[in-house]
Amino acid sequence: MSVNYKELLDQLYYETKDFAKYGKVANYIPALERISGDYFALSLITDKGVLYSSGDHSIPFSIQSISKVFSFTMVFRKIGTEIWDRIGREPSGTAFNSLIQLEHEKGIPRNPFINAGAIVVADMMLSVCNDPKSRLLSFIQSLAGDETIHYNPEVVASEKATGHRNYALAHFMKSFGNIHHTVEDVLDVYFHQCAIEMTTDQLARSFLFLANEGKNPINGEEILNPSRTKRLQALMLTSGLYDESGDFAFRVGMPAKSGVGGGIVGVIPRQLSLAVWSPALNERGNSIAGIEAMERFTTYTANSIF
Amino acid sequence: MSVNYKELLDQLYYETKDFAKYGKVANYIPALERISGDYFALSLITDKGVLYSSGDHSIPFSIQSISKVFSFTMVFRKIGTEIWDRIGREPSGTAFNSLIQLEHEKGIPRNPFINAGAIVVADMMLSVCNDPKSRLLSFIQSLAGDETIHYNPEVVASEKATGHRNYALAHFMKSFGNIHHTVEDVLDVYFHQCAIEMTTDQLARSFLFLANEGKNPINGEEILNPSRTKRLQALMLTSGLYDESGDFAFRVGMPAKSGVGGGIVGVIPRQLSLAVWSPALNERGNSIAGIEAMERFTTYTANSIF
Amino acid sequence: MSVNYKELLDQLYYETKDFAKYGKVANYIPALERISGDYFALSLITDKGVLYSSGDHSIPFSIQSISKVFSFTMVFRKIGTEIWDRIGREPSGTAFNSLIQLEHEKGIPRNPFINAGAIVVADMMLSVCNDPKSRLLSFIQSLAGDETIHYNPEVVASEKATGHRNYALAHFMKSFGNIHHTVEDVLDVYFHQCAIEMTTDQLARSFLFLANEGKNPINGEEILNPSRTKRLQALMLTSGLYDESGDFAFRVGMPAKSGVGGGIVGVIPRQLSLAVWSPALNERGNSIAGIEAMERFTTYTANSIF
Amino acid sequence: MSVNYKELLDQLYYETKDFAKYGKVANYIPALERISGDYFALSLITDKGVLYSSGDHSIPFSIQSISKVFSFTMVFRKIGTEIWDRIGREPSGTAFNSLIQLEHEKGIPRNPFINAGAIVVADMMLSVCNDPKSRLLSFIQSLAGDETIHYNPEVVASEKATGHRNYALAHFMKSFGNIHHTVEDVLDVYFHQCAIEMTTDQLARSFLFLANEGKNPINGEEILNPSRTKRLQALMLTSGLYDESGDFAFRVGMPAKSGVGGGIVGVIPRQLSLAVWSPALNERGNSIAGIEAMERFTTYTANSIF
Repeated sequence: MSVNYKELLDQLYYETKDFAKYGKVANYIPALERISGDYFALSLITDKGVLYSSGDHSIPFSIQSISKVFSFTMVFRKIGTEIWDRIGREPSGTAFNSLIQLEHEKGIPRNPFINAGAIVVADMMLSVCNDPKSRLLSFIQSLAGDETIHYNPEVVASEKATGHRNYALAHFMKSFGNIHHTVEDVLDVYFHQCAIEMTTDQLARSFLFLANEGKNPINGEEILNPSRTKRLQALMLTSGLYDESGDFAFRVGMPAKSGVGGGIVGVIPRQLSLAVWSPALNERGNSIAGIEAMERFTTYTANSIF
Repeated sequence: MSVNYKELLDQLYYETKDFAKYGKVANYIPALERISGDYFALSLITDKGVLYSSGDHSIPFSIQSISKVFSFTMVFRKIGTEIWDRIGREPSGTAFNSLIQLEHEKGIPRNPFINAGAIVVADMMLSVCNDPKSRLLSFIQSLAGDETIHYNPEVVASEKATGHRNYALAHFMKSFGNIHHTVEDVLDVYFHQCAIEMTTDQLARSFLFLANEGKNPINGEEILNPSRTKRLQALMLTSGLYDESGDFAFRVGMPAKSGVGGGIVGVIPRQLSLAVWSPALNERGNSIAGIEAMERFTTYTANSIF
Repeated sequence: MSVNYKELLDQLYYETKDFAKYGKVANYIPALERISGDYFALSLITDKGVLYSSGDHSIPFSIQSISKVFSFTMVFRKIGTEIWDRIGREPSGTAFNSLIQLEHEKGIPRNPFINAGAIVVADMMLSVCNDPKSRLLSFIQSLAGDETIHYNPEVVASEKATGHRNYALAHFMKSFGNIHHTVEDVLDVYFHQCAIEMTTDQLARSFLFLANEGKNPINGEEILNPSRTKRLQALMLTSGLYDESGDFAFRVGMPAKSGVGGGIVGVIPRQLSLAVWSPALNERGNSIAGIEAMERFTTYTANSIF
Repeated sequence: MSVNYKELLDQLYYETKDFAKYGKVANYIPALERISGDYFALSLITDKGVLYSSGDHSIPFSIQSISKVFSFTMVFRKIGTEIWDRIGREPSGTAFNSLIQLEHEKGIPRNPFINAGAIVVADMMLSVCNDPKSRLLSFIQSLAGDETIHYNPEVVASEKATGHRNYALAHFMKSFGNIHHTVEDVLDVYFHQCAIEMTTDQLARSFLFLANEGKNPINGEEILNPSRTKRLQALMLTSGLYDESGDFAFRVGMPAKSGVGGGIVGVIPRQLSLAVWSPALNERGNSIAGIEAMERFTTYTANSIF
């Protein structure tokens, strides 16, 4: 099929921008709360490396939970299947920061994309590399081909000051023996990764390896082998949008990951990567206009993984 | 890619048959308990209608929960989005017959493929057609192109005599107003659908409309439009194998539905449908050799939805 | 201490009657819904057998869950400690008709005074006597010294027609093997016991054996030995008012049992039995004016079990 | 009734000492783990102030959760009913350190005697007095009439190093706004109170105010008024032994509080206070020989609150 992606992104921009009014910008830290809900960006990159964008696609925003895909990928490369001794791979069925399942399941998070799972991944990063914060940043920069990507120190500080729920999760898992380093060290890594800022252009590019059978399209480096690439996308599909993952698969039909900064990035294997950003969230913490735009994208193009 | 499917199915037959020894045949009713754990069958049909099979592909077995895809499809055609007022579309995170989530969520089942969801679908069938049991059977016969498909009355009788958990689910949802007919009538439909017997050849053929953008490949009839076909497959991917759905997506990467009779049927959109049968189940109620065969299928062919 | 109980009951009648306006009469069956919220009765009987009353103490009302004390007593006499193989003796921490704990605890109800526990007791009654409905009624009549006490058949019929939650509980426990007779037979006993009608005078008298170290004060018959009498009162204190038991113990400090008909009966060992009736319930299903009257009773007399 | 308490305590000592072999000494911190399971002590003090003891009644041990009664009493005096805005008064139905209920109930602990509740009480102590650690110790010393009672700094250090679950509870409640001071300050108070060491003689004496309508029998000071004294005992009865409270009420029938150091202290209002100590615990964290001794005490004397 031949689609004029530039026209389509512009159309989606105008059609779905106003859905933001039904949502609410994240307000748990000042650095996020003051972001205007008017921003809206869409970026698409094909497996040939051609980039199309619409709206505020050059403005960096807090990627928050989208970073969980990067940190998981780093650890998956190093540790492989041993990950699954300490993290499950089932949808959680409960909110992203719930402690209930952890208690029933003895400190083993359901999957790597709920907060508890990502905190265990941060703990693993501390075990497999010396300076995980700079290593993670370099890794993302190399995927996006852009060395300007950075941490926002104000966001880090805010997360540390207010992240009581994440401290609770980390201490709770430590009580089950599933955190090996100190809670302070682990959350320092975790809060930094959440505070990375990127544009939708950068995000679309950095996820393109998933649509390229695991190879970085910029330099051909194998990030993950094809089998692991498949498996990571399956995790994204079943668990990438918190407890809205099933609904997102139903409406959109793309493996994707969202963050409370309002970003969502998805891929169609062997075809394309698509990033959207609109800061107003629905009650489950996902970008309300972002989901709408992505659903229309797969409906209008009759293209999805299904 | 060009794969010799007949050779591949035979190879998978020999490689994975013995995994059955790690599982256990369902024993909650005599009619299932007495099935030999030695049966093993694989059937694949391409979007061109070419059928390949290996093993016991002509022996009918109890399709059990696989029937939920057929009943849901019938109701989805008739009622469409109104379904979602009474059933969710998120993975459940708990066992297929759990009542816990129902209580927290006021009688709304998480998705149409857990027992509670399928019982609501059976209730909807009673509302949209006069004789749902015969209508469902005709529908399946037309999808499979085979009028010999039938209910097993002994299985129906056993389910009625021992299905206390299903009675509990139905009465519980009725207490929330989410069952409109009598519990007896609803479960009569539900127990019948679970007692349908089919071969893997018939199952593969009857799921082929999903790989054919919603059209029955035998007669070209549109069963579901392309958008709804996508959505149904998304539900199968996130919720088709009970609380092992995430793991199955991770290992196999196909939308699929399993049953405690030991059958699993999956599809790769626009390509093929694959049915397997081995009665020995893992502890989550899914065919242990069946999952192993399907994982090797997508790994060896480097073909999945991801 | 010397208290003029008649004056005190009259005072409590006037002081607390209007609390009923903050509550709501039970409306799940027509026979209860149509009861006027204006009724208010208090009856007290001392260990010497002297009866004091105020308000509508001669009007029979539906005793509902108060009957669980009578049925439990009957079974406790016959079976003794074997009861505890099938029922726990801990407060439930959840609502009276919750299924969640049952699922976590494999069909063993937390205590005999939540619905699930009382349904198991009804099942036990069917095992230990031929005609439990008439035996239970005779037992209550002998305790109260009044043969006019009866079942209300309209209430029985209503409970049967609308008691979906109780059917769900019974089927659920049967799926765990904790109901030995048919669900229909068990619930027939259970719905009958809930439909017994008594006045506060009769209720106060029928609970007096608890304040008399287990002996029926009318004829000296030992209903329970002193040790079991203590134990039954402990169960009432920790579990007699659904998930408001802790609060009731805190405010009132008497072992007691409530019902959704608006009755509450409590005892102070070796002293007295006190029954109140006001049909308007708080959100946990207990009589709002009834609790208020009982709290003032123990506060004004500085008399409680503590 | 006239009982020779000295003889009875000696008899209970010999009859129940060996029950310790069915239990296990707490092993979560070294300072507790190394305590011999052979210790056994019983102390009883009457409302006249006469003390009877048997066994190791002069050896101090870690009172752990028994301290929750002292801290709660201090705060109850100062704040009164405002406590109930931040803590419930229902039995929890779950283990003493569970986070599940906290999540369902938005950070409000079920009662002041589960860990979460006692941590909120510690937070309140920081609000109502300048130096809660020394104030609490003075308060206990004055109740027991013994200035040698002290904190064990080794136990404090161990609790801080290993108390991940308590850190999780405190951070979790802080995320709901129910902890007002820093987690470190609050847990410093909490870990200190758990590390107080007392003998059974001291414990029996320090609880005697509860059996004396709230007045310190040593100097006549009103610790709590009679109404609050009743209410505190009701809390102890419904929630004093973790999720074994119902069972303890059933078997023993005294308001009491236990600790994982193996101590239990109970009272019979207007009569006596009884403290026991045996370090071996049952699976719910209560002294196994201690409960047995207390059950026999109330059975042999036919004396309880019921």
